[in-house]
Amino acid sequence: MSTDSTRIDVAETEMTSREAKGKAPLLADPPGQVDRKSRGFMGLRRHAGRGGGYKRGIAIFDFVVRLCTLVAAIAATATMATTDETLPFFTQFFQFQASYDDLPAFQFFVVAMAIACVYLGLSIPLSIVSIIRPHAVAARMLLIFFDLGMVVLTTAAASSAAAIVYLAHVGNSNANWLSICQQFNNFCQRTSGAVVAAFLAMLGFMFLVVLSAVILKKP
Amino acid sequence: MSTDSTRIDVAETEMTSREAKGKAPLLADPPGQVDRKSRGFMGLRRHAGRGGGYKRGIAIFDFVVRLCTLVAAIAATATMATTDETLPFFTQFFQFQASYDDLPAFQFFVVAMAIACVYLGLSIPLSIVSIIRPHAVAARMLLIFFDLGMVVLTTAAASSAAAIVYLAHVGNSNANWLSICQQFNNFCQRTSGAVVAAFLAMLGFMFLVVLSAVILKKP
Repeated sequence: MSTDSTRIDVAETEMTSREAKGKAPLLADPPGQVDRKSRGFMGLRRHAGRGGGYKRGIAIFDFVVRLCTLVAAIAATATMATTDETLPFFTQFFQFQASYDDLPAFQFFVVAMAIACVYLGLSIPLSIVSIIRPHAVAARMLLIFFDLGMVVLTTAAASSAAAIVYLAHVGNSNANWLSICQQFNNFCQRTSGAVVAAFLAMLGFMFLVVLSAVILKKP
Repeated sequence: MSTDSTRIDVAETEMTSREAKGKAPLLADPPGQVDRKSRGFMGLRRHAGRGGGYKRGIAIFDFVVRLCTLVAAIAATATMATTDETLPFFTQFFQFQASYDDLPAFQFFVVAMAIACVYLGLSIPLSIVSIIRPHAVAARMLLIFFDLGMVVLTTAAASSAAAIVYLAHVGNSNANWLSICQQFNNFCQRTSGAVVAAFLAMLGFMFLVVLSAVILKKP
């Protein structure tokens, strides 16, 4: 690792120059020396000497939160997409069945959460790059931008589905929309679970944006 | 502040060591000199020498976007809250009337958008502080954090209301929920307008978060 060797080098240089002047070392932070030697990948490690440790810690935390969010998003998508209830009784012409694609809000939910899953899968390599190079501003800006988009997408999916799930549970007498959860009890249970998982994924994405902002700010 | 004095010390040390070695300076960026002079309000202007102009430009843009978002949020709240349609015919026992508080999603919409309006009003002074001091990291972190919360709140309000407005427009034959827009046409028009305004406010908040991230990143 070139960062480590740079640091050692810097410490030595500083010690000798200070010894020559007879000064006591206050705090070891010589930016010039670090800049010259550790100008690495795309010039992104220029500030590698300052606050690298705590930024790397946050980047690792970011990676863990990203994995948890992926789990929540997959759970939400899978639960909603496999929801399919057929009632045990039927008439001569019609069998009562409920599935997620009967309601447009649930279709949107499945599509949006699937997009979130794919994005999370694709962003994991970028998150790993961000652990190796904690000062890669370009990668971090890309992550904060797309994470924000995913906050909006998952919030929209979760809340529109929540509005419909709520309606399915309690109905609305003013608009004369009756509750369907007496008949399709299992369907309502599963969609409610999917909505909860989607809200967890939303919280995960919000946390990722905040972490990225903390990493972006000056040390 | 001990960090500043350290940097000055380091810069000087470095200069002398370079002069002693007979090397030409590579990049003229002595942070110590800037730090010593522009140490302003709460130590927030420590990096005021670099990129101050373009950051101030973005901060002014942030202020303008904030005002536009406030207009959109007020429009959304007012349109939804004043929506009240009474049908011209009535029976002996009942008069047909539709107002926003007949539907829980619209109640949530009004409350959430009102919160967004109040927040925007309160955040304008902080935004002005941020124009005067473009490097105020603490104020900027506060803004990005609350702006993100407002992105989520407005998205949730707009999309849950949109799900209900869509249902009111087209109904759903699978769940046996009939459209109410044939009867309450004016009500549907106004709520749709409020939802569109809320989505505009959401875009405004998203833009504010991105602008804050650009300001936060290192120059």
